[in-house]
Amino acid sequence: MDTKTSQKVESDNNAILLLSCPDRKGIVASVSEFIYKNNGNIVHADQHLDALGKIFFMRVEWELQDFKIPRQGLAHAFIPLAQKFKMDWNLRFSDHIPKMAIFVSKEGHCLYDLLLRHRAGELRSEIPLIVSNHPDLKEVAENFRVEYLTYPIDRRTKATQEKKELAELEAHRIEFIVLARYMQILSPEFISHFKNRIINIHHSFLPAFVGRRPYHQAHERGVKIIGATAHYVTEELDKGPIIEQDVVRVSHRDSVEDLIRKGRDIEKVVLARAVRLHLENKILVYGNKTVIFD
Amino acid sequence: MDTKTSQKVESDNNAILLLSCPDRKGIVASVSEFIYKNNGNIVHADQHLDALGKIFFMRVEWELQDFKIPRQGLAHAFIPLAQKFKMDWNLRFSDHIPKMAIFVSKEGHCLYDLLLRHRAGELRSEIPLIVSNHPDLKEVAENFRVEYLTYPIDRRTKATQEKKELAELEAHRIEFIVLARYMQILSPEFISHFKNRIINIHHSFLPAFVGRRPYHQAHERGVKIIGATAHYVTEELDKGPIIEQDVVRVSHRDSVEDLIRKGRDIEKVVLARAVRLHLENKILVYGNKTVIFD
Amino acid sequence: MDTKTSQKVESDNNAILLLSCPDRKGIVASVSEFIYKNNGNIVHADQHLDALGKIFFMRVEWELQDFKIPRQGLAHAFIPLAQKFKMDWNLRFSDHIPKMAIFVSKEGHCLYDLLLRHRAGELRSEIPLIVSNHPDLKEVAENFRVEYLTYPIDRRTKATQEKKELAELEAHRIEFIVLARYMQILSPEFISHFKNRIINIHHSFLPAFVGRRPYHQAHERGVKIIGATAHYVTEELDKGPIIEQDVVRVSHRDSVEDLIRKGRDIEKVVLARAVRLHLENKILVYGNKTVIFD
Amino acid sequence: MDTKTSQKVESDNNAILLLSCPDRKGIVASVSEFIYKNNGNIVHADQHLDALGKIFFMRVEWELQDFKIPRQGLAHAFIPLAQKFKMDWNLRFSDHIPKMAIFVSKEGHCLYDLLLRHRAGELRSEIPLIVSNHPDLKEVAENFRVEYLTYPIDRRTKATQEKKELAELEAHRIEFIVLARYMQILSPEFISHFKNRIINIHHSFLPAFVGRRPYHQAHERGVKIIGATAHYVTEELDKGPIIEQDVVRVSHRDSVEDLIRKGRDIEKVVLARAVRLHLENKILVYGNKTVIFD
Repeated sequence: MDTKTSQKVESDNNAILLLSCPDRKGIVASVSEFIYKNNGNIVHADQHLDALGKIFFMRVEWELQDFKIPRQGLAHAFIPLAQKFKMDWNLRFSDHIPKMAIFVSKEGHCLYDLLLRHRAGELRSEIPLIVSNHPDLKEVAENFRVEYLTYPIDRRTKATQEKKELAELEAHRIEFIVLARYMQILSPEFISHFKNRIINIHHSFLPAFVGRRPYHQAHERGVKIIGATAHYVTEELDKGPIIEQDVVRVSHRDSVEDLIRKGRDIEKVVLARAVRLHLENKILVYGNKTVIFD
Repeated sequence: MDTKTSQKVESDNNAILLLSCPDRKGIVASVSEFIYKNNGNIVHADQHLDALGKIFFMRVEWELQDFKIPRQGLAHAFIPLAQKFKMDWNLRFSDHIPKMAIFVSKEGHCLYDLLLRHRAGELRSEIPLIVSNHPDLKEVAENFRVEYLTYPIDRRTKATQEKKELAELEAHRIEFIVLARYMQILSPEFISHFKNRIINIHHSFLPAFVGRRPYHQAHERGVKIIGATAHYVTEELDKGPIIEQDVVRVSHRDSVEDLIRKGRDIEKVVLARAVRLHLENKILVYGNKTVIFD
Repeated sequence: MDTKTSQKVESDNNAILLLSCPDRKGIVASVSEFIYKNNGNIVHADQHLDALGKIFFMRVEWELQDFKIPRQGLAHAFIPLAQKFKMDWNLRFSDHIPKMAIFVSKEGHCLYDLLLRHRAGELRSEIPLIVSNHPDLKEVAENFRVEYLTYPIDRRTKATQEKKELAELEAHRIEFIVLARYMQILSPEFISHFKNRIINIHHSFLPAFVGRRPYHQAHERGVKIIGATAHYVTEELDKGPIIEQDVVRVSHRDSVEDLIRKGRDIEKVVLARAVRLHLENKILVYGNKTVIFD
Repeated sequence: MDTKTSQKVESDNNAILLLSCPDRKGIVASVSEFIYKNNGNIVHADQHLDALGKIFFMRVEWELQDFKIPRQGLAHAFIPLAQKFKMDWNLRFSDHIPKMAIFVSKEGHCLYDLLLRHRAGELRSEIPLIVSNHPDLKEVAENFRVEYLTYPIDRRTKATQEKKELAELEAHRIEFIVLARYMQILSPEFISHFKNRIINIHHSFLPAFVGRRPYHQAHERGVKIIGATAHYVTEELDKGPIIEQDVVRVSHRDSVEDLIRKGRDIEKVVLARAVRLHLENKILVYGNKTVIFD
């Protein structure tokens, strides 16, 4: 039962191009022509035009089988086109299995959920590392045979501990981080190493109930619906680009404990959907928002 | 096509008692015994115990046919029991058709929705009066043969105009007010005349996006779900007890105009549900929250 | 208050191409190249590959301003490309305002909803005609100044009456029909004149509760959620391609009448969404399913 | 990590009475008087009147601390009242922890979900036994230290194997059974031993897609929403009283595999909610429906 590699490996071998640029004529034509003339077959393509900002977004995925440009030369070959249209862009390959680290504190439901989905083949990634400020969930990690590192953190030790964490993340070649109910605020310095590559689950319907104890805040306010929000982490707490949200109905009969219990169910699915979208290269961040190509 | 009286009048003749009091033994027994020994038949009863505050809430509805105490003496007869348990309570009769006034500005969708539901028999009330700070929706009122009064309001005239409105509301014996996208803030003085009897629809998922232009705020923030909230109006803007909320999914493809369009659909249903709950005497306000007996 | 033309006319002048064909390399490239070399600017494009059937679907919309091929020659110019890829395709223009007829029986909520959305500019169409087998909703039509024709139908008169209806539809140049709770079954002959151009709202979550009195069926079965389904009408009753569905939660407390009342709210929004998708040329029918480009 | 007993044991000691009877005056009064005069404190009470059948339903829960009638004599003491009103009734105690068996086949997501919720204290029960027709999930059971018994079943062996299962269930004093994606049809004989005490999760929105491979059926039909249904098992396949349902939105982009993946998330929560309602004695079955006191 080794969960470090996904069991259900698809046999695809596709290139995925994500780009944004100022809107003008010919972007789709040029990109698809570039793919076609090199003998690629487009399997998915999606565009979006932000009418206000006149910015064009595109995600295109094509089969590399029979593609004339070798994989290692692809990015280089695309540069002239990217420059012509002033694109922000990046290129990924569907057979690349990214390495993700999960950060947790004491609550295990999101961690369990991610590990089980990973084992079921829902999340194409490796999970070589779980990081925590508490030892509580070590046994879960052992069950799934994932390394578990504990870095207790207080105000005094934070900077030092984060440095050690960063070293471990680098040593494990971690590409992105999932905060699965990690109850520590990461420093701007730490975040800067993983820009738009740290996904957090916040247990409220943001921007309502920012910060601590959102279920207590929700109960206090007497809302009839509670929510969960997955977002990329930025320096401003709970203010980063929102990836996914969902809600569940509650009533005056629900105590804070009921909200916490009902909330766990949406935290899990919202976080899992966000991680999956990230892994499938379906998210483009612009400004403080996301374009989701789903 | 006269909509001032509801077409579908149920033949019921029930008493409805709403009460709250400190929790102690014997409340349900005493109340149901009071009803039973006077030959009433309970058709609905619902209780709720706020475990934190040790407060007990109850809604009980019984048939008055064959009830020994005459309707006009019922409240008086209940006083000893109410005093014994230190109850906050009120007594209503299901055949009483309350008079409601609708306040609007320029947007007509909620107004139309309420008038059509009223005509379809969904809302057991009379609607003798529509009040507005603009003349725009006068034609709608005429279509439905409801009086439409226009009181243009600016900072200077507000106090005077509200006095005139209050006089009209009194003249029409209005019992509660529905703000169906009324874009003026009511003064504390005005609100004090209709405590827990003014229902507002706010076009966001409160407490997110309080105040002006919530759809613009939501678009700016990049949320993936928008909402609407019906609440009783209190002195603090958008902070009153929440009656009902609902949400609808949006995406990066939705412009502010799309949010406004999608939002209209939930504004209508959320407001209508809240008005219906109010008319059925199913709402108990305590502190800044509601108990909904549905 | 003339609702025959939409108040909010967008200033766009776009071509919309909907196509499906066997999947092969170069479709996107060829189509976008066709648009680009003629100086068109793509504003939306969406693709879908049915992996099982190896069928490729595409919707592309581009600005005609500055487009080199004149509008009347566009379809002709596209033929070679369509033939090369064996496309099923059609071409539409965003400034074309289609004429729709609404069919109703006695229930007015969907009719009212469509007329109000139309007036609010949500539905870019003309509505020159309302057809009914009952006179009940004539007053609504008059309010909105739309012609209302009554064709009472029984088994004996059906064929004759449908002929008259078809003549009127032709005389009014009706392009598609919306059955807004029209309680007659159309004949295959009638349907054949409007293939994939008749939208029906069925008041259940299809394929559950096909046929008559679905809310009664749902109540009888004791479901906890009810639904509504908008679909294109085919010869088989309630079996046509599904366009849109939605649901609402119910409980044992809800009588059949409550289901009917709650159901009305979703019937309205589901039908309106389907009509809007149709008007925006965002639906592609293949087999007995729909591809929705939203 | 012993999950056989729930970690979070509430300190309550309440009696719960569930009853139904023909409607007449005085039921609530008599029941609450019975409780009050014996010094019980009602903490929850809920009633429902089926207006069509004139049947009255009630759930009442009261504290036994200070209650004058000893627990073992309570049922006996209630008999006269029950007979007077011709009640179907049963009495339960909140400190009784029922024993449940989980039946599974090869799919582990619902099993895992139940075991994790149990460990988190969400499900007040003991789980001494997991029964399967396949050995695949034995390791999960071992992880959670629950006994796992395998009974391979084919047409020939079914009767014999079910007898063995029943013997084991009796030996473990199992009170109810949860079919957590158990892909065998139980015999009427087996079911008769656990009337209204077997909960199944069906992976469709019943009554749509009864029987085998509902996700394949849903994909084939082209629905825009899929669902899951928890119900009590009766002799008729997928026709028993529905306890809970929920849905999730899908699109033409979703393959059968995507439906299966998305469906898993609602199967888990729908089944868990149903099991929780059952454990809290909040379900009353009448005819082929349920009254849910939540």
